[in-house]
Amino acid sequence: MPEIEGGDAPELRGALTLRWLGIDTYQEAVVYMTRDCHVCRSEGFAAQSRVQVALGGRHLIATVNVVSSSLLGHGEASLSESAWRALDAQEGARVQLSHPEPLESLSVLRAKVYGRRVELQGWREVLADVVEGHYSELHLAALVTACAGDRLDLAETIALTQAMVEGGERLQWPGSHVVDKHSVGGLPGNRTTLIVVPIVAAAGLTIPKTSSRAITSPAGTADTMEVLAPVDLNVERMRRVVEQEGGCIVWGGNVRLSPADDLLIRVERPLDFDSEGQLVASVLSKKIAAGSTHIVIDVPVGPTAKVRSAQAARVLGERLEAVAQALGVHARVHVSDGMQPVGRGIGPALEARDVMAVLRGEPGAPADLRERSLALAAQVLQFAPGAVPGATFDTARRLLESGAALRKFEAICRAQGDLREPPRAPLTRAVNAGCTGMCVAIDNRRIARVAKLSGAPRAPSAGVELHVRLGERVEKGAPLYTVHAEAPGELAYALSYAAQHVDIVLVEER
Amino acid sequence: MPEIEGGDAPELRGALTLRWLGIDTYQEAVVYMTRDCHVCRSEGFAAQSRVQVALGGRHLIATVNVVSSSLLGHGEASLSESAWRALDAQEGARVQLSHPEPLESLSVLRAKVYGRRVELQGWREVLADVVEGHYSELHLAALVTACAGDRLDLAETIALTQAMVEGGERLQWPGSHVVDKHSVGGLPGNRTTLIVVPIVAAAGLTIPKTSSRAITSPAGTADTMEVLAPVDLNVERMRRVVEQEGGCIVWGGNVRLSPADDLLIRVERPLDFDSEGQLVASVLSKKIAAGSTHIVIDVPVGPTAKVRSAQAARVLGERLEAVAQALGVHARVHVSDGMQPVGRGIGPALEARDVMAVLRGEPGAPADLRERSLALAAQVLQFAPGAVPGATFDTARRLLESGAALRKFEAICRAQGDLREPPRAPLTRAVNAGCTGMCVAIDNRRIARVAKLSGAPRAPSAGVELHVRLGERVEKGAPLYTVHAEAPGELAYALSYAAQHVDIVLVEER
Repeated sequence: MPEIEGGDAPELRGALTLRWLGIDTYQEAVVYMTRDCHVCRSEGFAAQSRVQVALGGRHLIATVNVVSSSLLGHGEASLSESAWRALDAQEGARVQLSHPEPLESLSVLRAKVYGRRVELQGWREVLADVVEGHYSELHLAALVTACAGDRLDLAETIALTQAMVEGGERLQWPGSHVVDKHSVGGLPGNRTTLIVVPIVAAAGLTIPKTSSRAITSPAGTADTMEVLAPVDLNVERMRRVVEQEGGCIVWGGNVRLSPADDLLIRVERPLDFDSEGQLVASVLSKKIAAGSTHIVIDVPVGPTAKVRSAQAARVLGERLEAVAQALGVHARVHVSDGMQPVGRGIGPALEARDVMAVLRGEPGAPADLRERSLALAAQVLQFAPGAVPGATFDTARRLLESGAALRKFEAICRAQGDLREPPRAPLTRAVNAGCTGMCVAIDNRRIARVAKLSGAPRAPSAGVELHVRLGERVEKGAPLYTVHAEAPGELAYALSYAAQHVDIVLVEER
Repeated sequence: MPEIEGGDAPELRGALTLRWLGIDTYQEAVVYMTRDCHVCRSEGFAAQSRVQVALGGRHLIATVNVVSSSLLGHGEASLSESAWRALDAQEGARVQLSHPEPLESLSVLRAKVYGRRVELQGWREVLADVVEGHYSELHLAALVTACAGDRLDLAETIALTQAMVEGGERLQWPGSHVVDKHSVGGLPGNRTTLIVVPIVAAAGLTIPKTSSRAITSPAGTADTMEVLAPVDLNVERMRRVVEQEGGCIVWGGNVRLSPADDLLIRVERPLDFDSEGQLVASVLSKKIAAGSTHIVIDVPVGPTAKVRSAQAARVLGERLEAVAQALGVHARVHVSDGMQPVGRGIGPALEARDVMAVLRGEPGAPADLRERSLALAAQVLQFAPGAVPGATFDTARRLLESGAALRKFEAICRAQGDLREPPRAPLTRAVNAGCTGMCVAIDNRRIARVAKLSGAPRAPSAGVELHVRLGERVEKGAPLYTVHAEAPGELAYALSYAAQHVDIVLVEER
């Protein structure tokens, strides 16, 4: 042991007093410190400095931001909202700051960045650090980039999927056939889940469905379902709903299935990379962790959808089926039309209205949403023991038309806590056709942007109601779509964007 | 044109009033907004939302952080310190917020992520957006990752280097031979630049040296030079110094040579990837932009240095020389010993003392710093027209021993504005050997950490003074190194770290 002259090293004075600043950096943990605090000094105010923050028995690694104004006094620190929650912090509490231990799993990440293959154990180490919040946003971006394109082969994709499943809760259900469905996404209004789940559950199968909230879209399935029933269930309550009704539609955020996936998605979306291996691992890990054994995956194909060609859909489908098989479950890919939004509504309440119209068999219910839901339900029903191929579409239709699916849906909503009517927006304004002609294109991404500008999904009744579909004739002055909003400012913002992008719904004069 | 019922779309109300919060996020541009502002609403509080912020004629793209406390009032916004400076902001000014245009160059980035080759024009587009601040940290991390390992071939490295040079200022000097030297780094105390430049300039060659400040190390060359003379010169003043004295040692941050490189480095360091192609482009683009035609590159090799094997040094050297040749300049790689720190001091003033001791020919001057500097100067002098191979080491030694190099150094310092004596730290404490034996290892990274904890480089006199070198015999109780500090807290912090890591200077009992 070396000796330090003049006695032992003085104790660290690493504690700072918390003050709440209320800064939301989304999921990134940030610690705010003053320029004269010793941790700042020792780190040299470096870019992306990472420190360990401990409070009570909890700790996390956060990125340093330095405050030079009087927001913080001497000896004070603050945390971003997500870090504040994660540490269960209180104003005045004393946090201990220290240098984080080096992350061993970064050598695995580095190996992948350099193009080497990563085995199951390596993925386990990387994902454990991801779930613990040890990786910075930069590390997560590097991980996603290193896996992008075709950089994960089949064996690595299998290993990644398995490690993702192992990294969180894993549900189990009685019986050998637990079914599920998933849509690869990118298509506004595609809320088939709310129709498929009650049909399948009414047929007697078990379908424990977890769904996501919107991150960059105007509504996630969980947002739309929340207009009709609570979705914020924990694992125990979810289990009781499924045991009672055979199915559920809950938000996945509370049940901690494949939590690494949730964290990777937060950087995948802004980067906008289509990483096939990671998409496969993301979809399948969630389903396998939810206890599903037989899964139908809807892949909408279209120029403004996530998957843009039949060839890309085929490659993705083969990979999904092969990885599922390796992990002991069955996946079947269902390619669908992704040329235009599904149904009429875009936004939580407007989509919920479409869903209820289909379930109730109303004459004006959107036919495309009905047909897509029946086709998917039929695919799922083919997994039932003793199912007759070719007969399941009729089974699905019968369950829908007889009202059995509606009754099952209402029962699921009540089991989840409540059955509610979708709200209506107080403000609406139509965007009308500038000429007479035919609707030849609808831009999925821009119509979704209009819905987001109008307030969806935070304002549940906000969004867009489409009045035309591809190939339909439109008269000059007839409404193309109506913007719904809860606040005048948001209505103005959405309409301004609509006025700047006149070809969102393209009418060709003829 | 579609028509909106009830008249034109209302005007956007996109202006917010600035309030200064003084939050330093290093180089990332962040805009702080309240939860109820319309831009926040329209973006749905999404992770990594990016908005364009315009003020006067300037604009940039910033990441949104949402403030839910009373830090900001209704209609107010704030900016991180770097964004505040970039927009030349004032409290009370009105900023305009809008959705940024899609970045066309992201398709080039995506192509590289997917493993395709990127040509010169593609690199130009990517780097233009990097320099304009259009890329988020996530995009920069993806770019660095996509280029890591061996993912840039020779042709791409040449194109990247050229695009980096084109993206900033480019200096020109009279004469056909403008020389330079560069160290690949990772070795504490390796301040040969301050000795090589005056030797070479005293020999009559032109050597316009720009250096970096420390980001994660206890001292950059610019930090050490700043203890002795001003380094914060602009291009015009730098030019006058070089024209007058033949050489200079200034901070590169004010002269805007290869600015994309500065921005990529901010994510490369925390990611800690050794991207060979990017390292080559980084080193050569700076030198070529500075107008150099003949460059010696020092590559220290050692287990805790940046380059860890002779094989890696050879591969790197070949790539450096090939890219230099393609861009019309000459590069020569000089492999050196990277097993331990150079000289005795680690930290700006302590390193400056070593440098002055060598220049003044003091008997106790560190022999290793002297020898390394002479070897490098000899390599640079071989570029001189008519140089005799084998004779340049003697030339360098003669210029050093005669005092010509010292006089040239003092002249350069005065031309840069001032010649100063390095300060001495008020607080010092020795760490002593716990046993008698031989010094068998020195951990470059951890000894640098001790120096940083003691306050270097912000506190210029702080740092570490090493008393032993590899292979030397040490008596129990004799000092291994002394920590220098300007504040008691920092001394304590450095000593605490030293006490926790007893093998920073490893003495084997024998």
